[in-house]
Amino acid sequence: MDFDIQAAAKRAKAAAPQLAALPLETRNQALYAITEALIREQDAILKANQADLAASIEAGLPEPIVKRLKFDETKLQDSVAGIRDLIGLPDPLFKTVLKRQLDKDLLLERITCPIGVIGVIFESRPDALVQISTLCLKSGNCALLKGGSEARQTNRVLFDLIYAAGLSAGLPEGFLTLIESREDTLKILELDSAIDLLIPRGSNEFVKYIMDNTRIPVMGHADGVCHIYIDAAADPTKAAAIVTDAKTQYVAACNTLETLLVHRSRAAEILPLIARALAASQTRLLGDAEVSSLLGETLKEPANWSTEHLDYVLAIRLVDDLDEAIDHINRYGSHHTDSIVTEDSQAAARFMLRVDSAGVYHNCSTRFADGFRYGFGAEVGISTSKLHARGPVGLEGLVTYKYRLTGDGHKVDDYATGRRQFHFKDLPSD
Amino acid sequence: MDFDIQAAAKRAKAAAPQLAALPLETRNQALYAITEALIREQDAILKANQADLAASIEAGLPEPIVKRLKFDETKLQDSVAGIRDLIGLPDPLFKTVLKRQLDKDLLLERITCPIGVIGVIFESRPDALVQISTLCLKSGNCALLKGGSEARQTNRVLFDLIYAAGLSAGLPEGFLTLIESREDTLKILELDSAIDLLIPRGSNEFVKYIMDNTRIPVMGHADGVCHIYIDAAADPTKAAAIVTDAKTQYVAACNTLETLLVHRSRAAEILPLIARALAASQTRLLGDAEVSSLLGETLKEPANWSTEHLDYVLAIRLVDDLDEAIDHINRYGSHHTDSIVTEDSQAAARFMLRVDSAGVYHNCSTRFADGFRYGFGAEVGISTSKLHARGPVGLEGLVTYKYRLTGDGHKVDDYATGRRQFHFKDLPSD
Repeated sequence: MDFDIQAAAKRAKAAAPQLAALPLETRNQALYAITEALIREQDAILKANQADLAASIEAGLPEPIVKRLKFDETKLQDSVAGIRDLIGLPDPLFKTVLKRQLDKDLLLERITCPIGVIGVIFESRPDALVQISTLCLKSGNCALLKGGSEARQTNRVLFDLIYAAGLSAGLPEGFLTLIESREDTLKILELDSAIDLLIPRGSNEFVKYIMDNTRIPVMGHADGVCHIYIDAAADPTKAAAIVTDAKTQYVAACNTLETLLVHRSRAAEILPLIARALAASQTRLLGDAEVSSLLGETLKEPANWSTEHLDYVLAIRLVDDLDEAIDHINRYGSHHTDSIVTEDSQAAARFMLRVDSAGVYHNCSTRFADGFRYGFGAEVGISTSKLHARGPVGLEGLVTYKYRLTGDGHKVDDYATGRRQFHFKDLPSD
Repeated sequence: MDFDIQAAAKRAKAAAPQLAALPLETRNQALYAITEALIREQDAILKANQADLAASIEAGLPEPIVKRLKFDETKLQDSVAGIRDLIGLPDPLFKTVLKRQLDKDLLLERITCPIGVIGVIFESRPDALVQISTLCLKSGNCALLKGGSEARQTNRVLFDLIYAAGLSAGLPEGFLTLIESREDTLKILELDSAIDLLIPRGSNEFVKYIMDNTRIPVMGHADGVCHIYIDAAADPTKAAAIVTDAKTQYVAACNTLETLLVHRSRAAEILPLIARALAASQTRLLGDAEVSSLLGETLKEPANWSTEHLDYVLAIRLVDDLDEAIDHINRYGSHHTDSIVTEDSQAAARFMLRVDSAGVYHNCSTRFADGFRYGFGAEVGISTSKLHARGPVGLEGLVTYKYRLTGDGHKVDDYATGRRQFHFKDLPSD
């Protein structure tokens, strides 16, 4: 029988209220059953991955894709360890975040609950399938998953194991669905009546394409154009260390430094230090004639100030003051993560207040923008949207809330006509 | 000079970080200055409104529109009272909602901040202009406002007063913009690089049109198809009173009852009571042959179960059990507000857990779904979206957050290579 994406989405929608009602214990038991299944079926998983790898190499896929596709014993152990950590995290559901008596016997409560059905579209890494499906499960959300076609066999084995383990622990049928064809991915984008949230994981172009072609809310970020501003009151040693870390610690990450802004008064002293520190990684510097003359070499000018290089390339610009740096960042940045290096706490406060980014840092590397480094225990992704979830997103990004109102025959007309009055009284919540 | 909507949006974007940095005192002073200006210029406001009213009557606009357009002394006093209440509300900004030490001298804080630039498109009511511009101001957001063309003169006078009062209190130029042409409204929808959030207020068709024609996040609701379920263990007196209130207290509201679900075992007893209670308002009942026979009259069947009548019309359906009622609501409802009438607390708990709506009620009228009745003090609107803000939205719906990270030269590489370890320690937050 052909796979029917619309039927699958409806099934997920119908399963969502059932999954939403399950206690933490059941969800954790399912997670535990998944770890057991992954360990038990290790051979089948690795064999499927070998087949995917062989096919990809034969098809001549680029090395980075083949590398991301690899799911070996270490990756499997990491995945299992990740699920065990997830089991230990507190329940994001059923938290009473507001409890207010509106009047005698009329109680308002705001309770966290799952979002419902989440569509996740990711590129080649099979560990993403394990991670995202277990995050959705822990937070009580049904999920439709679409992985990269080059990981097809690995994903199929992983999905079958996870789905069977979930059912055995009492999760409702349809709590998880694997989508395998590209045509179905395009159809997902139209299922706005069944899918509550899309999480795309992949290249910028990929995320942008999703954002531009669906009415479903999308959580994610297309660009990470991060800045560091070296202030007039910067400590040169910290500046060089922070810039080196932010630029070179892992160049392919979204929180990597792309543009360095330097206060003109300190440029002659600090820029050569930074250039020397970056020489080890052969980072290519871009800048205008003034920057070139300070560094004693002829640099290419940056094509524009909004490029995410994701490479050993750093654009440099001199500014006259703090506000020029702030303006530059708000104008050309992607509102991801931006840092100021300064010993002047007032300058830092002004920068952190006025820079309109998910992360505003003082004297530290932009590379800290990460759910694990923030202590969230699990990361759903990083969001540059300002609504719902911003910055690194933990499990709480997968929950919403509902209002419960409990009365005893209460009518609005009594309050509208003045027969009764509201008496708001906040009670202790979770 | 012609009004340039793109230039205005850019100006708002540039003003946003300045407005975001102003302390509560300045924002409250601006609100106070606005109340003074509204009182001082009462004559000019009422005169402009008279002109709008006269033009609308002459143009033969429908009476409900003319009625909504009216801005008299009472409305003005209500608006001023609303702003005074708003001044008294606590600051939604600069709240530290998370404070966590990641390691020695590395402090993470999550701080509330404005969303940025908000576009508000509303239909004829001029009081909406006053309310929404002051809500945006209190929450530190710049706003672009587009009112109905029939309220053009009133809106222009109100806007000029509010803008001048804001500037006099120290708000940045461009913090508020009035848009007057329909062409510019359409252009707003494309300004996704400058506008962070759209709030449309008006008819369902209007809101749907906005949602379908922009990439900017939209806060609002297109439909309010609310249900009441009369359970097997319902108290008949409460049932009749709650249904009457929910259906007839104000039929044009989004939280008005549209579909009544009744447990078959109690229908013969309770439906006639409800029909008698609704007879006073001449509410027209819709139902199948079974419902008709129980009520001893031939009813028309409802055309479908997803219609928002916004009129004295009530669709009735019998169900076999609680779960059938839940399924009906999740399938045909608009996830706005739904209520169960029962003396069985377990049935109520199951209903409230599984119904996927912003408001899940027990033994009270759906009409309570409202920011003022929830004690929010000011209402931005009601949202049926699950992300960011759900249900009645107070000032907190107009804020987001950013992460501040303060270090002393901290580099990620030290943690990646194991030279340093994170030591997460949560500190007391606001």
